[in-house]
Amino acid sequence: MKNRKITLSESEIPENWYNIVADMPNKPLPPLHPGTLQPLGAADLAPLFPMELIKQEVSTERWISIPDEVRNIYSIWRPTPMFRAYGLEKALDTPAKIYYKYEGVSPAGSHKPNTAVPQAYYNKMEGVKKIATETGAGQWGSALSFACNIFKIECEVFMVRISYEQKPYRKVMMNTWGAKVFPSPSAETEVGKRILEKFPNTPGSLGIAISEAIERAASDENTKYALGSVLNHVLLHQTIIGQEALKQLEKEGNMPDIVIAPFGGGSNFAGLAFPFLRLNLAEGKHIRCIAAEPTACPKLTRGVFRYDFGDTAGMTPLLPMYTLGHNFVPAPIHAGGLRYHGAGAVVSQLMKDKLIEAQAFNNMEVFEAGITFARAEGIIPAPEANHGIACVIKEAKKCKEEGVSKTILFNLCGHGNFDMQAYQDYFAGKISNFELSSKEIQDSLSELTTPEIG
Amino acid sequence: MKNRKITLSESEIPENWYNIVADMPNKPLPPLHPGTLQPLGAADLAPLFPMELIKQEVSTERWISIPDEVRNIYSIWRPTPMFRAYGLEKALDTPAKIYYKYEGVSPAGSHKPNTAVPQAYYNKMEGVKKIATETGAGQWGSALSFACNIFKIECEVFMVRISYEQKPYRKVMMNTWGAKVFPSPSAETEVGKRILEKFPNTPGSLGIAISEAIERAASDENTKYALGSVLNHVLLHQTIIGQEALKQLEKEGNMPDIVIAPFGGGSNFAGLAFPFLRLNLAEGKHIRCIAAEPTACPKLTRGVFRYDFGDTAGMTPLLPMYTLGHNFVPAPIHAGGLRYHGAGAVVSQLMKDKLIEAQAFNNMEVFEAGITFARAEGIIPAPEANHGIACVIKEAKKCKEEGVSKTILFNLCGHGNFDMQAYQDYFAGKISNFELSSKEIQDSLSELTTPEIG
Repeated sequence: MKNRKITLSESEIPENWYNIVADMPNKPLPPLHPGTLQPLGAADLAPLFPMELIKQEVSTERWISIPDEVRNIYSIWRPTPMFRAYGLEKALDTPAKIYYKYEGVSPAGSHKPNTAVPQAYYNKMEGVKKIATETGAGQWGSALSFACNIFKIECEVFMVRISYEQKPYRKVMMNTWGAKVFPSPSAETEVGKRILEKFPNTPGSLGIAISEAIERAASDENTKYALGSVLNHVLLHQTIIGQEALKQLEKEGNMPDIVIAPFGGGSNFAGLAFPFLRLNLAEGKHIRCIAAEPTACPKLTRGVFRYDFGDTAGMTPLLPMYTLGHNFVPAPIHAGGLRYHGAGAVVSQLMKDKLIEAQAFNNMEVFEAGITFARAEGIIPAPEANHGIACVIKEAKKCKEEGVSKTILFNLCGHGNFDMQAYQDYFAGKISNFELSSKEIQDSLSELTTPEIG
Repeated sequence: MKNRKITLSESEIPENWYNIVADMPNKPLPPLHPGTLQPLGAADLAPLFPMELIKQEVSTERWISIPDEVRNIYSIWRPTPMFRAYGLEKALDTPAKIYYKYEGVSPAGSHKPNTAVPQAYYNKMEGVKKIATETGAGQWGSALSFACNIFKIECEVFMVRISYEQKPYRKVMMNTWGAKVFPSPSAETEVGKRILEKFPNTPGSLGIAISEAIERAASDENTKYALGSVLNHVLLHQTIIGQEALKQLEKEGNMPDIVIAPFGGGSNFAGLAFPFLRLNLAEGKHIRCIAAEPTACPKLTRGVFRYDFGDTAGMTPLLPMYTLGHNFVPAPIHAGGLRYHGAGAVVSQLMKDKLIEAQAFNNMEVFEAGITFARAEGIIPAPEANHGIACVIKEAKKCKEEGVSKTILFNLCGHGNFDMQAYQDYFAGKISNFELSSKEIQDSLSELTTPEIG
């Protein structure tokens, strides 16, 4: 019998996160204060984040120790299994060896708890009573609700109103873990009230929800803010994925030629890829690391590298990022987690330095890939994950054409149990491709007044 | 760091199912032909099931070898993890040691694929092209769809119309794995057409859906029928759960004093409990095995032991079962998998012989138990599983009162990702207890004309 699953024991959960900044030939540019355009200091971030996370945000240490309490909570779902995708290889009739790391086994159903748990932990250690955050479709909000419940921290989630109304089950999930969920814009904040007064019927947006969560944190000394991607410390926490994957492939006596992950703000991709990029940067290996993004939101393949705001409303520091412009509104694809205008500073610098690759995939190809995978491997993936799968299928077909047996590893970052409406729409013929014209991107970028990068 | 998770490697997946019939002091009574009232022979079942499953249905061999191909598919999600429920123990402040086996990691999200996969496999081996089945809320239908997709067998699922309309996402899940799903009653069968003509607006029932699936199988020689619980071979396949659990607890150096599982038709309970009951029957151990059923459908605690039909329409053989009568209509609790009027022959005989126990739990207690668990352990359980958890909490509190540290093991048979409406109803105050009067049960039983058991 061929082994399909490569498992690790609880004691093999890595003891450190890997901080790629230590090994980057060009370090990421600093975030800037939007008023002074000067690099931010720790004090600027202190109202929003606990000091330990701020230290991680600016750290250049290679290894950052994972607290025992965090490893203990991780053990609810970690180490996650790795699978050899025999079924998919057969379906594609490819000589490629395909492996995937499956993060959908976490209670919230995705990789997001990998950072939600340490974020809640460090807040708890510094006496924080409440964390406010935003969520779109609900993946991040449910992960943080799960984590806050464990450490007995209050959790308030500002959920984009249209998602709040259309996707009630993620909200119920957050309630089950004890979180309060508000449809955003809400009457809970000044910014929310102002927007509601002006646009009483607005469906809301992630930008507005971020503004509300930040206001909440900034105006209450017992409340902090948490973000689910983009920032350095978030990417750092996700490296637990790639480190486990490395151990698992070592057990197999195999190393990947290609590592693939979906790309939203960068944490999913960084989580799997950074520990393999370390082998390139520190040991001279040549592993291709490919970020798979939607053609509807192609920041890496069609955006520009410059300073931009992290949110639509322009309330955050300026971040050096590949961006489509913070006012860019992506088409309403079902992969809500990838509908973000920019890429985190670290992944952007790596992209700039050509140390990683990016490919964009259109909507129909993405769903066809997901259904191929579900039928070949049994697991129904989240729409975000389907972008990675589309890339895997493309590379595996190339292996067949070229008659080479490469090893491909990808991140199956979440299950699709809360995304069945997307599959229903696909089967009902309601999914279509989205074409984004160069003019639309130029128009969005031409509105930017933020500093360019020399 | 305390270990929370007890894992097994893929090579430790058991090689045999355990057939408790071999060790029962009183063997289960045979099913009877409803016309002749004579014990059924293999030929009577041949139109519905492949011969290998019929052999398993009547086997008295203690160990039945699991085919390599089935173990290979099992490895997609098996061995399933076992957890020490430190969080729940702390929340209850109990000296009890609580462990649970988590079956929600399967692609369909419950224990049902444990039998769906071998059923599809044996059908494939005997050249069957299509399997028809029924499903209520969709757990069994999605498990069989998953299994049939793997072995490239067509799958047709007759889904109770009201569930088909109210719970579309389970249907989409089945479609994703390639199954056809019909709202039942349908125009696909004669029985369906007759019922639709008479009651065009009927919401359907599990009984009708079974009748349609059986008609489909009986009227086409390339089509067989599959059932998700009750029958001996189904219970047999589920014993993989308890056998893994036994290995896992042996690794812990611990043995359970009490084993608990939810009870619908018996496969969930049998799956976990039978390998531990073997220790009672064959080695003189005294492990209490408790079936947890809903007060809305209390076949074990308030039903009678007699021959009854397996379906509402009276199309199946007569089975010796604890039953509330095949016309009994349980209150609409959210735990659809437990809304079945009878118990399988083997579990019924064990109950009759006082070798197992049963306890009934009302709706509010069950949801409170589920939410306590979700907050203490992180995983949101299916409403069916919450019945087992309510029983665990009761027994763990008793340990506290009595100051004894018993070891309790239970089956967390599935996650609640497709049951968030139930939790939403709970938070909205729309869940209530159901009281079932003795007269209602007597009325249902008084309609029975099937043979009594001496």
